[in-house]
Amino acid sequence: MGKKIVTITRQYGSGGREIGKRLAEQLGVEFFDNKLLDHAADHSGIHKSHFEENDEKRPNSFLYLLSTTYGQGGVPFDDTLFFAQLNSIQKIASEQSCVIIGRCADYALRDFEGVVNIFICAPFDDRVKRAIEVYDIAEKHAADYVKRIDKQRTSYYNYYTDKRWGAPSNYHLCLDSSALGIDGSVTLLKQFLDDFYKK
Amino acid sequence: MGKKIVTITRQYGSGGREIGKRLAEQLGVEFFDNKLLDHAADHSGIHKSHFEENDEKRPNSFLYLLSTTYGQGGVPFDDTLFFAQLNSIQKIASEQSCVIIGRCADYALRDFEGVVNIFICAPFDDRVKRAIEVYDIAEKHAADYVKRIDKQRTSYYNYYTDKRWGAPSNYHLCLDSSALGIDGSVTLLKQFLDDFYKK
Repeated sequence: MGKKIVTITRQYGSGGREIGKRLAEQLGVEFFDNKLLDHAADHSGIHKSHFEENDEKRPNSFLYLLSTTYGQGGVPFDDTLFFAQLNSIQKIASEQSCVIIGRCADYALRDFEGVVNIFICAPFDDRVKRAIEVYDIAEKHAADYVKRIDKQRTSYYNYYTDKRWGAPSNYHLCLDSSALGIDGSVTLLKQFLDDFYKK
Repeated sequence: MGKKIVTITRQYGSGGREIGKRLAEQLGVEFFDNKLLDHAADHSGIHKSHFEENDEKRPNSFLYLLSTTYGQGGVPFDDTLFFAQLNSIQKIASEQSCVIIGRCADYALRDFEGVVNIFICAPFDDRVKRAIEVYDIAEKHAADYVKRIDKQRTSYYNYYTDKRWGAPSNYHLCLDSSALGIDGSVTLLKQFLDDFYKK
Protein backbone atom coordinates (compact mmCIF):
# COMPACT_ATOMS: atom_id res chain seq x y z
CA MET A 1 0.00 0.00 0.00
CA GLY A 2 1.28 3.48 -0.87
CA LYS A 3 1.91 6.22 1.65
CA LYS A 4 -0.86 8.48 2.90
CA ILE A 5 0.29 12.07 2.87
CA VAL A 6 -2.17 14.75 3.90
CA THR A 7 -1.49 18.48 3.94
CA ILE A 8 -3.81 20.79 5.84
CA THR A 9 -3.92 24.51 5.16
CA ARG A 10 -6.05 26.35 7.68
CA GLN A 11 -7.51 29.73 8.43
CA TYR A 12 -6.50 30.80 11.94
CA GLY A 13 -9.05 29.63 14.51
CA SER A 14 -10.83 27.27 12.09
CA GLY A 15 -9.83 24.19 14.08
CA GLY A 16 -7.68 22.94 11.20
CA ARG A 17 -4.81 21.98 13.48
CA GLU A 18 -7.10 20.00 15.81
CA ILE A 19 -8.79 18.30 12.86
CA GLY A 20 -5.40 17.39 11.39
CA LYS A 21 -4.17 16.00 14.69
CA ARG A 22 -7.21 13.75 15.08
CA LEU A 23 -7.04 12.65 11.46
CA ALA A 24 -3.39 11.63 11.96
CA GLU A 25 -4.43 9.59 15.02
CA GLN A 26 -7.24 7.90 13.10
CA LEU A 27 -4.99 7.17 10.13
CA GLY A 28 -2.22 5.96 12.43
CA VAL A 29 0.34 8.30 10.84
CA GLU A 30 2.70 10.93 12.26
CA PHE A 31 1.46 14.48 12.79
CA PHE A 32 3.67 17.46 11.90
CA ASP A 33 2.85 20.93 13.07
CA ASN A 34 5.57 22.58 15.19
CA LYS A 35 7.46 19.29 15.02
CA LEU A 36 8.27 20.23 11.45
CA LEU A 37 10.36 23.11 12.83
CA ASP A 38 12.34 20.65 14.98
CA HIS A 39 12.98 18.51 11.92
CA ALA A 40 14.09 21.51 9.86
CA ALA A 41 16.36 22.71 12.68
CA ASP A 42 17.90 19.25 13.17
CA HIS A 43 18.58 18.78 9.47
CA SER A 44 19.76 22.30 8.61
CA GLY A 45 21.86 23.04 11.67
CA ILE A 46 19.99 26.35 12.09
CA HIS A 47 18.69 27.00 15.60
CA LYS A 48 14.98 26.25 16.05
CA SER A 49 14.31 29.74 17.40
CA HIS A 50 14.89 31.17 13.90
CA PHE A 51 12.23 28.87 12.44
CA GLU A 52 9.86 29.81 15.25
CA GLU A 53 10.41 33.55 14.86
CA ASN A 54 9.81 33.41 11.12
CA ASP A 55 7.14 30.70 11.10
CA GLU A 56 4.80 31.31 8.14
CA LYS A 57 5.84 34.97 7.91
CA ARG A 58 7.08 36.44 4.66
CA PRO A 59 9.92 38.94 4.50
CA ASN A 60 7.79 42.03 4.88
CA SER A 61 9.45 45.04 3.30
CA PHE A 62 12.10 46.32 1.01
CA LEU A 63 13.96 47.77 3.97
CA TYR A 64 13.88 44.38 5.65
CA LEU A 65 15.38 42.79 2.59
CA LEU A 66 18.13 45.43 2.59
CA SER A 67 18.93 44.83 6.22
CA THR A 68 18.44 41.07 6.27
CA THR A 69 21.22 38.71 7.21
CA TYR A 70 22.34 36.70 4.24
CA GLY A 71 22.71 32.95 4.57
CA GLN A 72 24.63 30.47 2.47
CA GLY A 73 25.53 31.57 -1.06
CA GLY A 74 24.08 35.05 -0.65
CA VAL A 75 20.53 33.76 -0.21
CA PRO A 76 18.47 35.92 2.20
CA PHE A 77 18.17 34.20 5.56
CA ASP A 78 14.35 33.98 5.31
CA ASP A 79 14.70 32.09 2.06
CA THR A 80 17.27 29.78 3.64
CA LEU A 81 14.74 29.00 6.38
CA PHE A 82 11.98 28.46 3.80
CA PHE A 83 14.10 26.06 1.74
CA ALA A 84 15.27 24.18 4.85
CA GLN A 85 11.60 23.67 5.76
CA LEU A 86 10.74 22.68 2.18
CA ASN A 87 13.52 20.08 2.29
CA SER A 88 12.20 18.74 5.59
CA ILE A 89 8.66 18.44 4.23
CA GLN A 90 9.92 16.55 1.16
CA LYS A 91 12.21 14.32 3.23
CA ILE A 92 9.42 13.43 5.67
CA ALA A 93 6.92 12.71 2.88
CA SER A 94 9.39 10.54 0.98
CA GLU A 95 9.95 8.40 4.08
CA GLN A 96 6.56 8.00 5.74
CA SER A 97 2.82 8.62 5.78
CA CYS A 98 1.99 11.86 7.61
CA VAL A 99 -0.34 14.80 8.19
CA ILE A 100 1.42 18.16 7.81
CA ILE A 101 -0.09 21.46 8.91
CA GLY A 102 0.54 24.65 6.89
CA ARG A 103 4.06 25.74 5.80
CA CYS A 104 3.20 25.54 2.06
CA ALA A 105 3.31 21.74 2.34
CA ASP A 106 0.87 21.34 -0.56
CA TYR A 107 3.29 23.34 -2.71
CA ALA A 108 6.38 21.52 -1.41
CA LEU A 109 4.76 18.19 -2.32
CA ARG A 110 3.15 19.22 -5.62
CA ASP A 111 5.09 16.56 -7.56
CA PHE A 112 4.61 13.76 -5.00
CA GLU A 113 2.19 10.87 -5.53
CA GLY A 114 -0.63 10.12 -3.09
CA VAL A 115 -0.81 13.57 -1.53
CA VAL A 116 -4.21 14.91 -0.47
CA ASN A 117 -4.48 18.66 0.08
CA ILE A 118 -7.19 19.94 2.41
CA PHE A 119 -8.17 23.51 3.33
CA ILE A 120 -10.08 24.23 6.54
CA CYS A 121 -11.96 27.50 6.97
CA ALA A 122 -14.75 28.77 9.24
CA PRO A 123 -16.85 31.94 9.60
CA PHE A 124 -14.88 34.87 11.00
CA ASP A 125 -16.90 35.17 14.23
CA ASP A 126 -16.44 31.48 15.01
CA ARG A 127 -12.72 31.87 14.55
CA VAL A 128 -12.54 34.87 16.84
CA LYS A 129 -14.44 32.86 19.47
CA ARG A 130 -12.00 29.97 19.12
CA ALA A 131 -9.02 32.35 19.37
CA ILE A 132 -10.36 33.56 22.72
CA GLU A 133 -11.46 30.20 24.10
CA VAL A 134 -8.78 27.86 22.82
CA TYR A 135 -5.75 30.08 22.21
CA ASP A 136 -6.38 32.43 25.11
CA ILE A 137 -6.19 35.61 23.03
CA ALA A 138 -7.52 38.70 24.86
CA GLU A 139 -11.09 39.37 23.78
CA LYS A 140 -10.47 43.00 22.77
CA HIS A 141 -7.60 42.02 20.45
CA ALA A 142 -8.96 38.73 19.12
CA ALA A 143 -10.61 39.99 15.90
CA ASP A 144 -7.50 41.93 14.87
CA TYR A 145 -5.29 39.00 15.78
CA VAL A 146 -7.28 36.56 13.62
CA LYS A 147 -7.09 38.96 10.66
CA ARG A 148 -3.37 39.48 11.12
CA ILE A 149 -2.47 35.78 11.28
CA ASP A 150 -4.58 35.03 8.20
CA LYS A 151 -2.88 37.88 6.40
CA GLN A 152 0.54 36.57 7.42
CA ARG A 153 -0.22 33.06 6.21
CA THR A 154 -1.70 34.28 2.94
CA SER A 155 1.22 36.56 2.34
CA TYR A 156 3.80 33.87 3.14
CA TYR A 157 2.14 31.34 0.83
CA ASN A 158 1.65 33.77 -2.05
CA TYR A 159 5.25 35.02 -1.72
CA TYR A 160 6.91 31.61 -1.81
CA THR A 161 4.63 29.73 -4.23
CA ASP A 162 3.11 30.40 -7.65
CA LYS A 163 -0.39 29.78 -6.25
CA ARG A 164 -2.94 31.74 -4.27
CA TRP A 165 -3.56 30.72 -0.66
CA GLY A 166 -7.09 29.38 -0.23
CA ALA A 167 -7.97 29.02 -3.94
CA PRO A 168 -10.08 25.83 -4.13
CA SER A 169 -8.14 24.60 -7.16
CA ASN A 170 -5.09 24.06 -4.88
CA TYR A 171 -6.95 21.59 -2.70
CA HIS A 172 -8.85 18.35 -3.11
CA LEU A 173 -11.34 19.45 -0.50
CA CYS A 174 -12.09 22.70 1.36
CA LEU A 175 -14.31 22.43 4.41
CA ASP A 176 -16.00 25.02 6.60
CA SER A 177 -15.50 23.37 9.98
CA SER A 178 -18.61 25.08 11.40
CA ALA A 179 -20.83 23.02 9.08
CA LEU A 180 -20.32 19.76 10.99
CA GLY A 181 -18.21 20.91 13.96
CA ILE A 182 -14.74 19.54 14.72
CA ASP A 183 -15.86 15.94 15.38
CA GLY A 184 -18.10 15.85 12.32
CA SER A 185 -15.36 17.34 10.15
CA VAL A 186 -12.91 14.66 11.27
CA THR A 187 -15.44 11.91 10.48
CA LEU A 188 -16.19 13.30 7.01
CA LEU A 189 -12.53 13.87 6.15
CA LYS A 190 -11.61 10.38 7.34
CA GLN A 191 -14.30 9.04 4.99
CA PHE A 192 -12.92 11.21 2.18
CA LEU A 193 -9.36 9.97 2.75
CA ASP A 194 -10.46 6.32 2.97
CA ASP A 195 -12.36 6.71 -0.32
CA PHE A 196 -9.42 8.52 -1.92
CA TYR A 197 -6.83 5.92 -0.98
CA LYS A 198 -9.17 3.06 -1.95
CA LYS A 199 -9.44 4.45 -5.50
CA MET B 1 -38.16 18.44 9.50
CA GLY B 2 -36.80 21.61 7.88
CA LYS B 3 -36.22 22.04 4.18
CA LYS B 4 -33.02 20.87 2.52
CA ILE B 5 -31.73 23.55 0.19
CA VAL B 6 -28.47 22.92 -1.62
CA THR B 7 -26.74 25.35 -3.98
CA ILE B 8 -24.00 24.12 -6.28
CA THR B 9 -21.52 26.49 -7.87
CA ARG B 10 -19.36 24.74 -10.44
CA GLN B 11 -16.36 25.27 -12.66
CA TYR B 12 -17.29 24.43 -16.25
CA GLY B 13 -16.63 20.76 -17.00
CA SER B 14 -16.15 19.79 -13.34
CA GLY B 15 -19.23 17.57 -13.35
CA GLY B 16 -20.96 19.84 -10.83
CA ARG B 17 -24.26 19.72 -12.71
CA GLU B 18 -24.23 15.91 -12.88
CA ILE B 19 -23.29 15.67 -9.20
CA GLY B 20 -26.09 18.08 -8.28
CA LYS B 21 -28.62 16.14 -10.32
CA ARG B 22 -27.75 12.86 -8.65
CA LEU B 23 -27.72 14.46 -5.20
CA ALA B 24 -31.22 15.81 -5.84
CA GLU B 25 -32.38 12.30 -6.80
CA GLN B 26 -30.81 10.79 -3.69
CA LEU B 27 -32.29 13.48 -1.45
CA GLY B 28 -35.67 13.15 -3.18
CA VAL B 29 -35.84 16.89 -3.88
CA GLU B 30 -36.40 18.92 -7.03
CA PHE B 31 -33.43 19.81 -9.23
CA PHE B 32 -33.12 23.28 -10.75
CA ASP B 33 -30.66 24.00 -13.52
CA ASN B 34 -32.22 25.33 -16.73
CA LYS B 35 -35.61 24.77 -15.12
CA LEU B 36 -34.86 27.85 -13.06
CA LEU B 37 -35.05 29.89 -16.27
CA ASP B 38 -38.54 28.48 -16.97
CA HIS B 39 -39.60 29.47 -13.48
CA ALA B 40 -38.20 32.99 -13.86
CA ALA B 41 -39.85 33.36 -17.28
CA ASP B 42 -43.22 32.12 -16.00
CA HIS B 43 -43.19 34.43 -12.99
CA SER B 44 -41.77 37.55 -14.62
CA GLY B 45 -43.63 37.46 -17.92
CA ILE B 46 -40.30 37.91 -19.74
CA HIS B 47 -39.72 35.43 -22.59
CA LYS B 48 -37.44 32.52 -21.66
CA SER B 49 -35.14 33.25 -24.60
CA HIS B 50 -33.91 36.41 -22.82
CA PHE B 51 -32.93 34.39 -19.76
CA GLU B 52 -31.19 31.84 -21.96
CA GLU B 53 -29.25 34.45 -23.95
CA ASN B 54 -28.04 36.19 -20.80
CA ASP B 55 -27.62 33.10 -18.62
CA GLU B 56 -24.78 33.74 -16.12
CA LYS B 57 -23.32 36.50 -18.30
CA ARG B 58 -22.65 39.93 -16.88
CA PRO B 59 -23.26 43.14 -18.84
CA ASN B 60 -19.82 43.35 -20.36
CA SER B 61 -18.89 46.90 -21.20
CA PHE B 62 -19.62 50.53 -20.74
CA LEU B 63 -20.79 50.72 -24.35
CA TYR B 64 -23.17 47.86 -23.72
CA LEU B 65 -24.63 49.65 -20.72
CA LEU B 66 -25.09 52.78 -22.82
CA SER B 67 -26.92 50.88 -25.55
CA THR B 68 -28.85 48.46 -23.36
CA THR B 69 -32.61 48.28 -23.39
CA TYR B 70 -34.05 49.58 -20.15
CA GLY B 71 -36.70 47.56 -18.35
CA GLN B 72 -39.19 48.57 -15.70
CA GLY B 73 -38.42 51.74 -13.77
CA GLY B 74 -35.27 52.55 -15.76
CA VAL B 75 -33.46 49.42 -14.54
CA PRO B 76 -31.13 47.97 -17.22
CA PHE B 77 -32.68 44.89 -18.79
CA ASP B 78 -29.84 42.61 -17.61
CA ASP B 79 -30.50 43.66 -14.04
CA THR B 80 -34.23 43.04 -14.52
CA LEU B 81 -33.37 39.50 -15.63
CA PHE B 82 -31.01 39.02 -12.68
CA PHE B 83 -33.60 40.18 -10.16
CA ALA B 84 -36.34 38.06 -11.75
CA GLN B 85 -34.05 35.05 -11.35
CA LEU B 86 -33.18 36.06 -7.78
CA ASN B 87 -36.90 36.25 -6.98
CA SER B 88 -37.43 32.80 -8.49
CA ILE B 89 -34.60 31.29 -6.44
CA GLN B 90 -36.01 32.80 -3.25
CA LYS B 91 -39.57 31.75 -4.08
CA ILE B 92 -38.54 28.16 -4.83
CA ALA B 93 -36.42 27.89 -1.67
CA SER B 94 -39.18 29.30 0.50
CA GLU B 95 -41.60 26.66 -0.80
CA GLN B 96 -39.62 23.43 -1.10
CA SER B 97 -36.39 21.49 -0.66
CA CYS B 98 -34.22 21.71 -3.76
CA VAL B 99 -30.81 21.57 -5.40
CA ILE B 100 -30.04 24.70 -7.46
CA ILE B 101 -27.14 24.95 -9.89
CA GLY B 102 -25.25 28.24 -10.32
CA ARG B 103 -27.02 31.60 -10.87
CA CYS B 104 -25.66 33.14 -7.65
CA ALA B 105 -28.11 30.98 -5.68
CA ASP B 106 -25.81 30.95 -2.63
CA TYR B 107 -25.97 34.77 -2.66
CA ALA B 108 -29.72 34.88 -3.31
CA LEU B 109 -30.28 32.60 -0.30
CA ARG B 110 -27.69 34.14 2.04
CA ASP B 111 -30.34 34.96 4.66
CA PHE B 112 -32.22 31.64 4.39
CA GLU B 113 -32.00 28.90 7.01
CA GLY B 114 -30.85 25.38 6.19
CA VAL B 115 -28.98 26.26 3.01
CA VAL B 116 -25.82 24.32 2.16
CA ASN B 117 -23.47 25.89 -0.38
CA ILE B 118 -21.16 23.61 -2.35
CA PHE B 119 -18.46 24.43 -4.91
CA ILE B 120 -17.29 21.81 -7.41
CA CYS B 121 -13.98 22.22 -9.22
CA ALA B 122 -11.59 19.91 -11.10
CA PRO B 123 -8.17 20.16 -12.75
CA PHE B 124 -8.22 22.13 -16.00
CA ASP B 125 -7.22 19.19 -18.24
CA ASP B 126 -9.98 17.00 -16.80
CA ARG B 127 -12.49 19.74 -17.52
CA VAL B 128 -11.34 20.15 -21.08
CA LYS B 129 -11.69 16.38 -21.54
CA ARG B 130 -15.22 16.49 -20.15
CA ALA B 131 -16.12 19.45 -22.39
CA ILE B 132 -15.13 17.35 -25.42
CA GLU B 133 -16.63 14.04 -24.29
CA VAL B 134 -19.81 15.12 -22.53
CA TYR B 135 -20.64 18.52 -24.02
CA ASP B 136 -19.41 17.74 -27.53
CA ILE B 137 -17.15 20.80 -27.77
CA ALA B 138 -14.70 20.62 -30.73
CA GLU B 139 -11.32 19.47 -29.46
CA LYS B 140 -9.39 22.41 -30.91
CA HIS B 141 -11.63 24.96 -29.19
CA ALA B 142 -12.27 23.11 -25.92
CA ALA B 143 -9.51 24.66 -23.78
CA ASP B 144 -10.50 28.20 -24.80
CA TYR B 145 -14.16 27.39 -24.31
CA VAL B 146 -13.62 26.13 -20.74
CA LYS B 147 -11.65 29.27 -19.87
CA ARG B 148 -14.30 31.53 -21.38
CA ILE B 149 -17.23 29.97 -19.54
CA ASP B 150 -15.37 30.07 -16.22
CA LYS B 151 -14.55 33.70 -16.86
CA GLN B 152 -18.20 34.45 -17.67
CA ARG B 153 -19.45 32.77 -14.50
CA THR B 154 -16.84 34.45 -12.32
CA SER B 155 -17.56 37.82 -13.82
CA TYR B 156 -21.34 37.43 -13.48
CA TYR B 157 -21.07 36.39 -9.82
CA ASN B 158 -18.58 39.10 -8.87
CA TYR B 159 -20.67 41.75 -10.66
CA TYR B 160 -23.96 40.94 -8.97
CA THR B 161 -22.80 39.94 -5.49
CA ASP B 162 -20.46 41.39 -2.87
CA LYS B 163 -18.46 38.13 -2.80
CA ARG B 164 -15.77 36.51 -4.93
CA TRP B 165 -16.73 33.47 -7.01
CA GLY B 166 -14.94 30.35 -5.77
CA ALA B 167 -13.65 31.78 -2.47
CA PRO B 168 -13.91 28.87 0.02
CA SER B 169 -15.45 31.13 2.66
CA ASN B 170 -18.62 31.35 0.49
CA TYR B 171 -19.18 27.61 0.64
CA HIS B 172 -19.59 24.94 3.29
CA LEU B 173 -17.61 22.52 1.15
CA CYS B 174 -15.50 22.76 -2.02
CA LEU B 175 -14.66 19.51 -3.74
CA ASP B 176 -12.29 18.64 -6.58
CA SER B 177 -14.44 16.07 -8.37
CA SER B 178 -11.37 14.30 -9.76
CA ALA B 179 -10.37 13.18 -6.25
CA LEU B 180 -13.17 10.60 -5.97
CA GLY B 181 -14.77 10.76 -9.43
CA ILE B 182 -18.41 11.67 -10.02
CA ASP B 183 -19.89 8.64 -8.20
CA GLY B 184 -17.53 9.02 -5.24
CA SER B 185 -18.22 12.74 -5.03
CA VAL B 186 -21.97 12.11 -4.90
CA THR B 187 -21.52 9.54 -2.13
CA LEU B 188 -19.32 11.86 -0.05
CA LEU B 189 -21.58 14.88 -0.52
CA LYS B 190 -24.66 12.85 0.36
CA GLN B 191 -22.88 11.85 3.58
CA PHE B 192 -21.98 15.50 4.21
CA LEU B 193 -25.58 16.64 3.69
CA ASP B 194 -27.00 13.86 5.87
CA ASP B 195 -24.57 14.82 8.65
CA PHE B 196 -25.35 18.53 8.20
CA TYR B 197 -29.11 18.11 8.37
CA LYS B 198 -28.83 15.70 11.32
CA LYS B 199 -26.98 18.37 13.37
